[in-house]
Amino acid sequence: MKSPQAEKARLDKITVDAITEAARGIDAKISRHAKPEVAFPVRSLSNVKYDPKKGYFEIGKGKSTRTLTVNTAKTFAQTLKMMALSKELVETSDFATKRDAYYQSKNWGDARFDGQTESDTVMDDIEAMFSIHGVSREQLRYIPDEHGGAVAGELIVHDTDLETGKVERIDCTKFGSGAYSIPSLVEHLTFETDAKFILCIETGGMFQRLQSHKFWQKSHCILISMAGVPTRATRRFVRRLSDQCKLPVYAFVDCDPYGISNIYRTLKVGSGNAAHINRFFCVPQASFLGVTPQDIVDYKLPTHPLKDVDVKRARDALKNDPFFKVHPGWAKAVSRLLELGVRAEQQALARWGLNYVIDEYLPRKLKATAKFLP
Amino acid sequence: MKSPQAEKARLDKITVDAITEAARGIDAKISRHAKPEVAFPVRSLSNVKYDPKKGYFEIGKGKSTRTLTVNTAKTFAQTLKMMALSKELVETSDFATKRDAYYQSKNWGDARFDGQTESDTVMDDIEAMFSIHGVSREQLRYIPDEHGGAVAGELIVHDTDLETGKVERIDCTKFGSGAYSIPSLVEHLTFETDAKFILCIETGGMFQRLQSHKFWQKSHCILISMAGVPTRATRRFVRRLSDQCKLPVYAFVDCDPYGISNIYRTLKVGSGNAAHINRFFCVPQASFLGVTPQDIVDYKLPTHPLKDVDVKRARDALKNDPFFKVHPGWAKAVSRLLELGVRAEQQALARWGLNYVIDEYLPRKLKATAKFLP
Repeated sequence: MKSPQAEKARLDKITVDAITEAARGIDAKISRHAKPEVAFPVRSLSNVKYDPKKGYFEIGKGKSTRTLTVNTAKTFAQTLKMMALSKELVETSDFATKRDAYYQSKNWGDARFDGQTESDTVMDDIEAMFSIHGVSREQLRYIPDEHGGAVAGELIVHDTDLETGKVERIDCTKFGSGAYSIPSLVEHLTFETDAKFILCIETGGMFQRLQSHKFWQKSHCILISMAGVPTRATRRFVRRLSDQCKLPVYAFVDCDPYGISNIYRTLKVGSGNAAHINRFFCVPQASFLGVTPQDIVDYKLPTHPLKDVDVKRARDALKNDPFFKVHPGWAKAVSRLLELGVRAEQQALARWGLNYVIDEYLPRKLKATAKFLP
Repeated sequence: MKSPQAEKARLDKITVDAITEAARGIDAKISRHAKPEVAFPVRSLSNVKYDPKKGYFEIGKGKSTRTLTVNTAKTFAQTLKMMALSKELVETSDFATKRDAYYQSKNWGDARFDGQTESDTVMDDIEAMFSIHGVSREQLRYIPDEHGGAVAGELIVHDTDLETGKVERIDCTKFGSGAYSIPSLVEHLTFETDAKFILCIETGGMFQRLQSHKFWQKSHCILISMAGVPTRATRRFVRRLSDQCKLPVYAFVDCDPYGISNIYRTLKVGSGNAAHINRFFCVPQASFLGVTPQDIVDYKLPTHPLKDVDVKRARDALKNDPFFKVHPGWAKAVSRLLELGVRAEQQALARWGLNYVIDEYLPRKLKATAKFLP
C-alpha cells in the first residue's frame, strides 16, 4: 500500500488537474468568443439508480448546464472563485468549512455571496461536478462543520501529519471510558486491527455502556458512536476502515422508521439528494443487527406508538425508495412495523436489566449474522 | 491527593448514606403511622441567588414537599424506586441513562413510568433533593445520553478503571488531526498538564482549524470543542480540569445573544432552571475572549442582522438575568450589540484569511487577558 503522503500527492494531483482542466475549457471558449458553460449532474431522486451489486445510490446521466449570461454572471463568477479557492487550499495543504468559504468570499468584490445558502449551493454544484472525476468535497479541501463520531475498541489509527510526515499511532483500546473523536478529514488515516467487525451504534448512551463494559474486548470489535444520522466524516471513516481491513459493518439502531430509513439506509447506500457523493460515503458492506421489528415481539420490548411522521416515513419508503423496493426482506420488515403500529428504542432492552444487551442480546445476535437484514 | 479509587469510595459512601438516610426518614414516619414526605428545592429563577464571589447561580431556600396521599401514591413510589435503583447502581459500579432508568421502570409493576417526561421529572426531583448533600446526578450514577465534547492539546488524562484499578494515560497531544472524546462520566478522571490555559470553542469547524494547525503547541493550551451549548460532561470536565490544575478558562464563541447568554453564561455560572446542579457544573473561573461586540467594529467583521429571537434574548438577559445585572461590563456589551443590530460568527474572522484567527486574532487577544469580559 502507498504511504498516506504518496496517496495524498496522487489525489491532490487528480484534484488540481480536474480543476485546471475545467478552467481551461472555460478559458478556451472565451478566447474564441463563445459563451462559456459549466455542467453539473442533476441531484435528485429522479436521477438516481440503485444496483445492489454496486451497493449505493448512483447518480444518473442527467445534467444541467450553466451558461454565462447576464443573469448568471454572478453565480458563474462565484463558481470559478470557489474552484480557485479549492486549488489554493490543496496547494497550501489547508482546508475550509462551508462557512469559512462563505466568509472568504467577502473579499471577492461583487462576486461575494450575500448569504450562506448561496455559497452552499455553489459548493454542492462544484462537488457534484468534480465527483464525476472521482474527486470528493473533502479532496477539494472543503470540510464539514459538524462534529464527528466517536470510536473505541480493537483499532489502531495511523494519522500522518502531512507536513512533517510524522505518524501518530492512536490505540483505541487505550481511552479508558473515553473515546477517539473522528477528525473532519479522514482521507489520510490508515488502520491496523485484529477486530472481527465494526459495530455502529445510534445513541451515545448505548455506546457509553458498551465502551465502559469493554464489550469490544469480549467480542473483538470496533465500536462507533454515530449519535443519530452519522456525519460525513463518520461515514467515510467507517467506509475506509471497512474497505481497508475487510471488516463487516453491523448497525445497531432504534427500531423506528427514522433509525431504519434515515440512519441505516443513509449509512449503507447513501441518500437521494446527495447521490453524487454516495460512492465515497456509503458503506454497502453494512448489515442490520437490530433492533428489528421481530425483536420487538421476540424480546417483549416496551414500545411507543408510531407517530404520524413515522407512519408517513415508512409508507414513503415502501412506495418510493429504491432500497426498500430492491430488498424484499426490508419491505417485509417495514410492513411488519406498520402492522405492529409501534416503535422501540435500542435502550428498551434495559427492561431486562441494564446489561442484558451485553450479556444476552448482542451475543445471541452475533451468532447468526447471516440472518441480519441486508 | 487521594487516588481516584479512594475518592470514588468516599463519594459513593456519601451517596449511599444520603439515600439511606432519606429512606430511613420515610420508614420512621410510616412506622409511627404518620404520612411520609419528601422535600425538594424549588427549581426556578425566582429561587436563585447570584454572588459573583461564589461564581454561580445558587439555589435558594425555597422547598416544595411531596406528602404521600392517594393522589401522589404513584409518584411517591416512583421516587423511592428511583432512589433504590441509584443505590443499586452505586453498589454495582454501573450507571444508567435517563432512558435506561425509564425502561427499567417497566419492571416496577404499577409504579412503572408511562412516559419519559414522568421519569425525567422524578429524576430532576431526586437530583435536586440530593444536591443539598453535595451529591450530583452523576454520583447517583445517572448519566446524560448526549454526546460529550472533544479535547486536544497539552493535557494528559488519567482514566482509572474502577474495577481493576488499571490507569490509562491518555496523551491529548498524540491524536494527530483527531481528538479525545469526553466520556459521559468524568468524576474518576485526573489530569497532568503544563498548559497555561483552557480554550473552549463553540464550533467544530474552528476547533478543527486550531487542532489541525496545532495552535495548542504554540500557545501551550488545551482546546475544548463545545459544539454549541456544552454538555454536562463537557462542563464538568472543564470545571474539574480547571480546578485541579489551576488553569484559567477562556471562551471563544460567536458574537450573538445565543453565544453570549446561552453558551458562555451557562458555561460560567450555570442556568436558572438547573440551579441545584450549578455548583458542580459551572466554571466560575471562565472569562470571555471573544468574539465581542467591539471586535465586530475593530476587525470589520462580516455580520448578519440580529433576528427577532436574538433581540428578545438580549433584552431578556438585560432585564431578568442576574448575571448581566451584576456585571456592568456585560450589560454594556449586550447593549452595544443591540445598538449595532448585528451578530458575527467566530468564523467571520476568515474574511481576513483562513488562518488569520491563528496568526493574528488569538495571539493579540491572549496578550491582554485582563481585558476579557468577566
